[in-house]
Amino acid sequence: MARLSSLLSFSLALLIFLHGSTAQQFPNECQLDQLNALEPSHVLKAEAGRIEVWDHHAPQLRCSGVSFVRYIIESKGLYLPSFFSTAKLSFVAKGQGLMGRVVPGCAETFQDSSVFQPGGGSPFGEGQGQGQQGQGQGQQGQGQGQQGQGQQGQGQGFRDMHQKVEHIRTGDTIATHPGVAQWFYNDGNQPLVIVSVLDLASHQNQLDRNPRPFYLAGNNPQGQVWIEGREKQPQKNILNGFTPEVLAKAFKIDVRTAQQLQNQQDNRGNIVRVQGPFSVIRPPLRSQRPQEEVNGLEETICSARCTDNLDDPSNADVYKPQLGYISTLNSYDLPILRFLRLSALRGSIRQNAMVLPQWNANANAVLYVTDGEAHVQVVDDNGDRVFDGQVSQGQLLSIPQGFSVVKRATSEQFRWIEFKTNANAQINTLAGRTSVLRGLPLEVISNGYQISLEEARRVKFNTIETTLTHSSGPASYGRPRKADA
Amino acid sequence: MARLSSLLSFSLALLIFLHGSTAQQFPNECQLDQLNALEPSHVLKAEAGRIEVWDHHAPQLRCSGVSFVRYIIESKGLYLPSFFSTAKLSFVAKGQGLMGRVVPGCAETFQDSSVFQPGGGSPFGEGQGQGQQGQGQGQQGQGQGQQGQGQQGQGQGFRDMHQKVEHIRTGDTIATHPGVAQWFYNDGNQPLVIVSVLDLASHQNQLDRNPRPFYLAGNNPQGQVWIEGREKQPQKNILNGFTPEVLAKAFKIDVRTAQQLQNQQDNRGNIVRVQGPFSVIRPPLRSQRPQEEVNGLEETICSARCTDNLDDPSNADVYKPQLGYISTLNSYDLPILRFLRLSALRGSIRQNAMVLPQWNANANAVLYVTDGEAHVQVVDDNGDRVFDGQVSQGQLLSIPQGFSVVKRATSEQFRWIEFKTNANAQINTLAGRTSVLRGLPLEVISNGYQISLEEARRVKFNTIETTLTHSSGPASYGRPRKADA
Amino acid sequence: MARLSSLLSFSLALLIFLHGSTAQQFPNECQLDQLNALEPSHVLKAEAGRIEVWDHHAPQLRCSGVSFVRYIIESKGLYLPSFFSTAKLSFVAKGQGLMGRVVPGCAETFQDSSVFQPGGGSPFGEGQGQGQQGQGQGQQGQGQGQQGQGQQGQGQGFRDMHQKVEHIRTGDTIATHPGVAQWFYNDGNQPLVIVSVLDLASHQNQLDRNPRPFYLAGNNPQGQVWIEGREKQPQKNILNGFTPEVLAKAFKIDVRTAQQLQNQQDNRGNIVRVQGPFSVIRPPLRSQRPQEEVNGLEETICSARCTDNLDDPSNADVYKPQLGYISTLNSYDLPILRFLRLSALRGSIRQNAMVLPQWNANANAVLYVTDGEAHVQVVDDNGDRVFDGQVSQGQLLSIPQGFSVVKRATSEQFRWIEFKTNANAQINTLAGRTSVLRGLPLEVISNGYQISLEEARRVKFNTIETTLTHSSGPASYGRPRKADA
Repeated sequence: MARLSSLLSFSLALLIFLHGSTAQQFPNECQLDQLNALEPSHVLKAEAGRIEVWDHHAPQLRCSGVSFVRYIIESKGLYLPSFFSTAKLSFVAKGQGLMGRVVPGCAETFQDSSVFQPGGGSPFGEGQGQGQQGQGQGQQGQGQGQQGQGQQGQGQGFRDMHQKVEHIRTGDTIATHPGVAQWFYNDGNQPLVIVSVLDLASHQNQLDRNPRPFYLAGNNPQGQVWIEGREKQPQKNILNGFTPEVLAKAFKIDVRTAQQLQNQQDNRGNIVRVQGPFSVIRPPLRSQRPQEEVNGLEETICSARCTDNLDDPSNADVYKPQLGYISTLNSYDLPILRFLRLSALRGSIRQNAMVLPQWNANANAVLYVTDGEAHVQVVDDNGDRVFDGQVSQGQLLSIPQGFSVVKRATSEQFRWIEFKTNANAQINTLAGRTSVLRGLPLEVISNGYQISLEEARRVKFNTIETTLTHSSGPASYGRPRKADA
Repeated sequence: MARLSSLLSFSLALLIFLHGSTAQQFPNECQLDQLNALEPSHVLKAEAGRIEVWDHHAPQLRCSGVSFVRYIIESKGLYLPSFFSTAKLSFVAKGQGLMGRVVPGCAETFQDSSVFQPGGGSPFGEGQGQGQQGQGQGQQGQGQGQQGQGQQGQGQGFRDMHQKVEHIRTGDTIATHPGVAQWFYNDGNQPLVIVSVLDLASHQNQLDRNPRPFYLAGNNPQGQVWIEGREKQPQKNILNGFTPEVLAKAFKIDVRTAQQLQNQQDNRGNIVRVQGPFSVIRPPLRSQRPQEEVNGLEETICSARCTDNLDDPSNADVYKPQLGYISTLNSYDLPILRFLRLSALRGSIRQNAMVLPQWNANANAVLYVTDGEAHVQVVDDNGDRVFDGQVSQGQLLSIPQGFSVVKRATSEQFRWIEFKTNANAQINTLAGRTSVLRGLPLEVISNGYQISLEEARRVKFNTIETTLTHSSGPASYGRPRKADA
Repeated sequence: MARLSSLLSFSLALLIFLHGSTAQQFPNECQLDQLNALEPSHVLKAEAGRIEVWDHHAPQLRCSGVSFVRYIIESKGLYLPSFFSTAKLSFVAKGQGLMGRVVPGCAETFQDSSVFQPGGGSPFGEGQGQGQQGQGQGQQGQGQGQQGQGQQGQGQGFRDMHQKVEHIRTGDTIATHPGVAQWFYNDGNQPLVIVSVLDLASHQNQLDRNPRPFYLAGNNPQGQVWIEGREKQPQKNILNGFTPEVLAKAFKIDVRTAQQLQNQQDNRGNIVRVQGPFSVIRPPLRSQRPQEEVNGLEETICSARCTDNLDDPSNADVYKPQLGYISTLNSYDLPILRFLRLSALRGSIRQNAMVLPQWNANANAVLYVTDGEAHVQVVDDNGDRVFDGQVSQGQLLSIPQGFSVVKRATSEQFRWIEFKTNANAQINTLAGRTSVLRGLPLEVISNGYQISLEEARRVKFNTIETTLTHSSGPASYGRPRKADA
């Protein structure tokens, strides 16, 4: 009897396990009775920063098919190179720094050069001299030319060469291909905060729907806590998986150095503190960006532009001085997004400004609040309000395809970034000058809502803005006002 | 003991539940031992019509990754605007009417205008006058110019403007993007019957594999009976999910009107009866279609052609006066299908005509019978006959990729529409002038089937038609006949 | 109690069954703690050869989303025409033969012709005469013109016509669309060995993730052993599923011949032995290939080139006389791969040559060993070594996206073919002249691995080869050597 009973509990335990594991695996289940403003569920601490991971098993993220990560890199912190099996779109929420991507097969176009030796203002200043002068350069963050690598007693004859290094600052949106290694360095004084969306559901990710960072250096003693069973195993860099002898032969180095590449005695995590100056070859701050933007079609993947800044109101798609601005970044702005099938929208609105109700026609979206807070309502296909509350700085809200959303700033400033799972995400608005109700005949509105033609006319024509409006302004009745946005 | 036993039955119940729920979730399982001619499983009744939904959990529809719906709109019925998260391809099986789509960001190009005021034959007749004369126009269905909206005492100064409205009639095939709202109005005397396929498995649908109509107006008191757990909740329009105060602010209307937009006291469902004339601005019947067809490449999504008629035998791809005709619609005919990744085939054959055995090389198909009946055989990859029976008007048959099918009309007329999940679905025939056996060397046929070269020659060359043949005609032996189709 | 106990065991059995079936169904689960060198799990024997199928349920193949098959066709064996619902990429590992594909709607461009009647060296020699002379032609394998089909007493007046037939030989890589029937004939003296990858996870396969051959002729008495529940049912050709009367009407033949087409009394399987000469119309061996390669863009799918040979070192992408060569085939070489989303890599290295550690940035890969053996290490995203062992001739190893791999030949020759699930699969190397470490600044390497700049310089610049190196060669320290590959 006891045996029977224990068998039975085993059976039930198995059932529960089974149910758990199956429930977790169904790819994009979207029975969402309730959305929540999500906070990170796992924090990976490192020497000079931390990586905060949202639980991609949360129903609303599973429905959206994405994973979300926040990197907080302290001053002089270096996020060691890593890559993902997914396309990635990142946004610099705060701070400034340097970013390098290593695209396979591309040439090392950044080289030390002694031709431009004299003159600190030239893009390629003299290496060694500056390296010794520029002790505080990381903190200055002005990047007035690259620094040599001759600090540790090397002769003048040797120079470094590496792939493109770019300056990044608040508002930069960075597209990264699957399999492409990327590193960040904080050369400012405040923390560098980067948020990234990983498109797990895209065909570009040919593994399962788990976010999987592959580290080229460093390690993660806590393990991949977001993958079942992986939390117990510390995550090491990929060189650690090869035997030191193989590495020694591949790199033509001695076995001792090969062992060093495995970071086995290293407890710094994946964001390490750089000692002394960080002497990489870099262009002067922002001098090359405008030039790059002249050419919309980049010739090869090596020279393709991968970053754009969304924080300049002069480039905004919608701009109303009293209310705020909205900028979008799609594959027309940044052609590389066509391959990644992702796009972004940056919004910044003032107290009591309202983003008119709208839905995403062809994309899922995740909205991350970078500053302030707002009151948001989200409505599903059943006409039910699945979210009605505040979202504030550092929170994430998932907005599935077709779900309608209205946002109203409740702090002095509300600023957010929305990542969308389509290279050209389309928005439909419910109210306003380009809205769906504006496109319907009066007769359809009148019959649909059982209102008079006069009321239908007001519903259709009263709001003359396209996207942003005053949420507290006096409602105007009667004749439509003249359009001003 | 009793407790053990009850635990056990609970365990078993859980098992069965689990099995049920998991079985339902696996996306496209295709272990189909048997196909069936499917009828709608759910009927949503409304004031002026009904919506009939096929169960998308049926194994053969799940394998095909599509959902199927039939709309029956009575005379003067208006199917209120709604959108889906999937691409949709619709076919007008019976009747005539008006159709409007509201594409986000496109201009309202249909406007009342007094410039063309005199002359009823001009495309834009005078609004108010006609509006008062044309009481019976809806029933006449001739659409000889648009009608004004001045009936309810508005001044002459105000005019409506809205997005394109099109006449639709039997045979029209209509492509609709995800997220684009669409409405239909029956301006004829007989019911307007429209069947639609929704491509759940396509990457365009970023939600799960449930068909999800989002209603802009109206409601559905029965709930979304096809989604588990949703049948108990009446489905409301999406405006219902916002608080009236938010709507009032967004639309700049008073809260009472905002409440009216929520259709809460409305029990008419999603197809409502229009009282009085339906005065929308519309072009004259069919005057603009031929002009549109001149230009194969539309310039913007706003002007892109989305409909084509498949019922004109003079445009048929295969036409044999004695047997019938077959017309296809793919992305070469209608470029927008390239984005939707859907295509259609319309067939109409006479008694005893036979569609030669064939398979879809790169698409799943669903076949809907619009008139008459036929005897159909379907064969799977194992060489087993998985369907052998009659399909008749109103029934749906799923034909998975690679499965071979042969159809023979058993009524005076057999007419059907086939929707295929590929923008350029390719057919391979087993017999006939362009068939796979015709492409094989005689030696392969002779050795493969262990028949003589003379027999192989007959197998290969006897049938000289490509697609349609007489199923009762005398089989001809010996020399191949002269090709006539 | 006994009843309870039996209920319990039933419950447990059900659980295990359920677990089995659910585990099997999750599409691409990639929790791979261990990779294995895989051997075929099922062998289908036929009269003149055998078909060896790898279990596509194996976790590593399920993660990769592909299925793998090996065809061994004996001399004079004919693999009867069949098609798949997936895209297929094949590689001729050994032997030579003929291959025919029947593309729907394409014309039969290979015809008997009496215009070129005299002269054996002309591409279209005289049919009937050669047919009688050329008894041993299959074994000669020289293909010196086509043979007539008049052997069995037909008059001179009749000629065959069929679609393109191509010679194939070791090293040929053959792309096949879903739904396109294909046959092979071994006209050499040694077995013809062809390995094929089927891309189950691609959107081109609209059925579930089971490999499903559809046979046009022949049968498979063992059934589709790789599909659950199908092993009990012998698999027949698809004509078998239609009633003989329907076939007789479709092909305009008598019912007896129609029954013959169903191969019901046939026990030869899908590879049959051809009796007598195999007289198909074929071009002279390899005379047309160079001409085809002039035009990179084929005009229609009917004339599109579908094969390329990867065994000619003079076309290799990487070639080092002492070490070996590597050739890739992607959509730039063979444009049709753009539609199939597959590509291939052929490698051939000598004893102790090493392929530098690398990962696939945007594709899964399966590696099949055609000759010799090698020692391989594979590392996952967690930095764990998931494979460390020998792979030898006839074995298959799956290498998921992002996983790093290093190969070292341990026999005189190691030759392999890698199929990749991307039309333009990109490789990133860890060491070498175009490697990711070469693209990183010295400061990143130095800080990441806690090594001196001098050591970092060695790690970065010591290996000057791009892909292949000596695994036993003396490691050189100090100054970088001059690049030689």
